[in-house]
Amino acid sequence: MPHIELQEGLPGMRALQTYRPETAVPLNQLANILLRGPSTLLPGERELIGAFVSSLNDCFYCQTIHGAVAAHDLGGDENLVEQTKLNFEKAPLTDKLKALLAIAAKVQQGGKQVTAEAISRAREAGATDLEIHDTVLIAAAFCMFNRYVDGLATWAPEDPQFYRQRGEYLSRNGYSAPVATRA
Amino acid sequence: MPHIELQEGLPGMRALQTYRPETAVPLNQLANILLRGPSTLLPGERELIGAFVSSLNDCFYCQTIHGAVAAHDLGGDENLVEQTKLNFEKAPLTDKLKALLAIAAKVQQGGKQVTAEAISRAREAGATDLEIHDTVLIAAAFCMFNRYVDGLATWAPEDPQFYRQRGEYLSRNGYSAPVATRA
Repeated sequence: MPHIELQEGLPGMRALQTYRPETAVPLNQLANILLRGPSTLLPGERELIGAFVSSLNDCFYCQTIHGAVAAHDLGGDENLVEQTKLNFEKAPLTDKLKALLAIAAKVQQGGKQVTAEAISRAREAGATDLEIHDTVLIAAAFCMFNRYVDGLATWAPEDPQFYRQRGEYLSRNGYSAPVATRA
Repeated sequence: MPHIELQEGLPGMRALQTYRPETAVPLNQLANILLRGPSTLLPGERELIGAFVSSLNDCFYCQTIHGAVAAHDLGGDENLVEQTKLNFEKAPLTDKLKALLAIAAKVQQGGKQVTAEAISRAREAGATDLEIHDTVLIAAAFCMFNRYVDGLATWAPEDPQFYRQRGEYLSRNGYSAPVATRA
């Protein structure tokens, strides 16, 4: 049961954004820019970073929904998402994405855990400053999203089909506040 | 030295927001709503929650700047900010704010660490659902801000006077993106 009174039947972040539409506006804008906006990283790569950090934070809702978005973005490859969460170093990903996932894992532990070596590895694999910046901010943002969703004990559906359908929708349409807002 | 090339002489979050003005817009909007917007919690109380979480995350820049904003908001009481960071349970704060700080400390550890007992304590001290919601989101947001600032190894001035002046400015004017943006 959620720690505060939320609209029944709405899962995770959607229940929270319906409860507090003011903060939903910048949260969706941030997610859209970081995950779906113009970038030299594919949306599916960025969603994968988000799903991965969410799995490190043990947030079922976020890792499942963003894993589903990533899978849809990347041609329906749900197995790739699972492999990444289990052991990204052995997953069939580019060296650059592996190096960025390694940075994201450090950020999840804490900002000061990001080492010059982790940055060098990413650079040697071809990552730009902006890709490194965005990876750090994506990982940091999911440390917020995960704590928001689990810190208020929101409800998460168990049916994988829910996440597949919602993942496809988000992959096509991006993120938006669930109700009309006053922004 | 920062992990990516940032404009010299700009501290912490300001260097990052100048580097990436697109994400600066929602980050500032979120901070303004949560910390300075309409609420039954005083701006100083909310800034204190942010400074406290930043101290738990060992983020020097964020804990010092938001500590300075809180001190200015609360009538210039820098000692109260230090007492809160050292041991909030013994600081001269209301029972409600202590209970909210206890929730924020759980969120800093992880979303799932927030217990029904911590929520009950806040409710018994008079906290509303919205105050509990905003406390969780403030704490979660600072887990993002702190990782963003330290994860890219930004520069932070050491002079306490810098933070006092900037804290007073932010207390009066709120948060805004440091440059004109395309939003």
